[in-house]
Amino acid sequence: MKPINVGLLGIGTVGGGTWTVLSRNAEEIARRAGRPIRITAVADRDVALAQRVTGGAARITADAFELVRDPEIDVVVELIGGYGIAKDLVLTAIENGKHVVTANKALLAVHGKEIFAAAQAKGVTVAFEAAVAGGIPIIKALREGLSANRIEWVAGIINGTTNFILSEMRDKGLPFADVLKQAQALGYAEADPTFDIEGVDAAHKITLMSALAFGIPVQFDKAYVEGITKLEATDIKYAEQLGYRIKLLGIARRRQAGIELRVHPTLIPTKRLIANVEGAMNAVLVQADAVGSTLYYGKGAGAEPTASAVIADLVDITRLATAGAEHRVPHLAFQADQLVDLPILPIEEVQTAYYLRMRVEDKTGVLADITRILADGKISIDAMLQKEPGEGESQTDIILLTHLAIEGQVNAAIARIEGLATVVGKVTRIRLEELN
Amino acid sequence: MKPINVGLLGIGTVGGGTWTVLSRNAEEIARRAGRPIRITAVADRDVALAQRVTGGAARITADAFELVRDPEIDVVVELIGGYGIAKDLVLTAIENGKHVVTANKALLAVHGKEIFAAAQAKGVTVAFEAAVAGGIPIIKALREGLSANRIEWVAGIINGTTNFILSEMRDKGLPFADVLKQAQALGYAEADPTFDIEGVDAAHKITLMSALAFGIPVQFDKAYVEGITKLEATDIKYAEQLGYRIKLLGIARRRQAGIELRVHPTLIPTKRLIANVEGAMNAVLVQADAVGSTLYYGKGAGAEPTASAVIADLVDITRLATAGAEHRVPHLAFQADQLVDLPILPIEEVQTAYYLRMRVEDKTGVLADITRILADGKISIDAMLQKEPGEGESQTDIILLTHLAIEGQVNAAIARIEGLATVVGKVTRIRLEELN
Repeated sequence: MKPINVGLLGIGTVGGGTWTVLSRNAEEIARRAGRPIRITAVADRDVALAQRVTGGAARITADAFELVRDPEIDVVVELIGGYGIAKDLVLTAIENGKHVVTANKALLAVHGKEIFAAAQAKGVTVAFEAAVAGGIPIIKALREGLSANRIEWVAGIINGTTNFILSEMRDKGLPFADVLKQAQALGYAEADPTFDIEGVDAAHKITLMSALAFGIPVQFDKAYVEGITKLEATDIKYAEQLGYRIKLLGIARRRQAGIELRVHPTLIPTKRLIANVEGAMNAVLVQADAVGSTLYYGKGAGAEPTASAVIADLVDITRLATAGAEHRVPHLAFQADQLVDLPILPIEEVQTAYYLRMRVEDKTGVLADITRILADGKISIDAMLQKEPGEGESQTDIILLTHLAIEGQVNAAIARIEGLATVVGKVTRIRLEELN
Repeated sequence: MKPINVGLLGIGTVGGGTWTVLSRNAEEIARRAGRPIRITAVADRDVALAQRVTGGAARITADAFELVRDPEIDVVVELIGGYGIAKDLVLTAIENGKHVVTANKALLAVHGKEIFAAAQAKGVTVAFEAAVAGGIPIIKALREGLSANRIEWVAGIINGTTNFILSEMRDKGLPFADVLKQAQALGYAEADPTFDIEGVDAAHKITLMSALAFGIPVQFDKAYVEGITKLEATDIKYAEQLGYRIKLLGIARRRQAGIELRVHPTLIPTKRLIANVEGAMNAVLVQADAVGSTLYYGKGAGAEPTASAVIADLVDITRLATAGAEHRVPHLAFQADQLVDLPILPIEEVQTAYYLRMRVEDKTGVLADITRILADGKISIDAMLQKEPGEGESQTDIILLTHLAIEGQVNAAIARIEGLATVVGKVTRIRLEELN
């Protein structure tokens, strides 16, 4: 059968990996896809790099817009990243009737509504397995593997940089800033790590997964995003003593009133498999009504793991290249006319459990005051850890784990606790999920 | 769009679960599939049961052959099980141009060649997500999610009964026979548990996965199958002391000379995520060249988890129901004319590491004799555990872990060791995989 001609936008790390894997496994891939898949044109500003990687086996251009209009190209793979030119290129490719494969989570999380609508109107596919959790086929699992289920929630360790930092902080008892420097030296964190450590990257990914899980539009602007920069080694240590690990989780949960969509550091029980995902690895846990819990684990980044996802999408598109649009798997798991606009809940309405750490004067009645405030707010206590004051100290730490509570009520209770004369400074509050 | 009409063969546990989930999530499923999926006819010998479950909402018949020939039926779901009548029904359904969804691992592992060839000739799909690891979408991952990769090996905990028994043996230090009785009382093991505890069920499943992973025909007759019935609690304890857990693994590995296809109790490092899969849960670890290691975890059995997989296949078929055969995902991941007949290696040629336990007289020179025999056989030692003799005893246990070795050579060395005057009785040999 006629080969599928792919136009590649950007031949950096992931683009280079895609070229390498498609070349190395060409025969194996054609045996699966039913026809050869070949990159026939590459657009990159660094023409010399593109020449070097492709060794003259593809047409090279510095003009990406020319490529996405090329009538010889069947599918465009966008690996440029960012919201700027990448958006114009993807929309132009769609307008020219090309299927699009992209690893660009930022673009889809922010501009997905517009892009998916354009693809729908044009009858082409926008596939994005590579945008979430690298080579782990989690998009396919949510979109197809779990299609029988009403999905209840998705919780994922979906940013390798922050998971590496948290693993190191726990292992070595070091503060955030030191481990970040080390992660940068090792190449696990970028020179400007803001998107990773502030949780933005994870929020892009959980936003995409929320659309697939619940059949809602992509709406990054309503996600609650909190990174790991303020996390203290002390809390990692106390959590450990209570049987928990702290992970940066992306969480999307269906509630009666709407959808919770949030990224923040989270205590999870050490006995859960996902709590033991260490280093730069990724894992996504999905709770669904028929199948129960399923977990998907693997490398969340890197040239070849990401290329694995890009090429899986190319194989899917190749199998369907000439079938009518109605036979395709919908981009967002649900048919385009079947999305529903469930509200995304503000963070104050989120319901979760909490870890609260406070510094108190070691006096009788302190604990009674604190527990009364919590009881007034209908917040019940699941576990408590009270340390003896250090030699010659008059203050000590109290750590409380609560049962499920509404965030707004917890915040109100914290304000009252901080007002007590016997409580020193601020209360540290970290969310906790049992994930069962 | 026109609904898809499903004919259900067998409304027992999984059939009942499929009915329940399709009814409960009808709207959610139609939003994904693009049209309603409904069971319009059910065949079961227990007509009264079928009436009760369906409440009159489907046509009931005791004649399954009539159902698979019914021109109103688009897809047949086979949940009868076994190799007998199920085979005739599946072949008759195919002959009548029906797509088939089945959870019947035994049927496909043993008669897959004939069934897939018939489906290919007729241009229909045989889908079997439910045949391996319940609702975990591992068939889809191997067939589609990892299609960019050259898959190196697949190792899975794919039988919940045996994993439950092994977890209990380890937790409580009890012997196999006691735990089996308890598992039967709890409903985790059947009255006749032979297929599970002798490894046959796991072998059916790993046989199917080997076909998907490597593009080879389904050939259960060449699998090596060893169950857990001879496993002693002592070895579970020693393994733990050495940093390993014992799991019943199904393993399919690509080697230069051919494919290893085997099921047996296996030591795996406790630090691996898969070693921590406990109770009746399932997990499959896949090593592939581009993506590296990925793990898939969830419930491997039960009415609704299995129904989740059956319905996912129905949704896939619905999406493609009217597209040409060339646009479909191939049953066995690779195109039907692209299967290659790599040899399945006999167990003597398998390469793995080994745990060896032997009872020896506590005399000088014993260890030297044993290690010399291993060195002669080019078997190198990775770790050793020698226990002090008990009070008043003259014998003790030696446990050796080897590096990778060829099974035939290990067996020859064991025979020589058992011939030593200072070695008492048989050497216990359990295979070990580092899974890295």
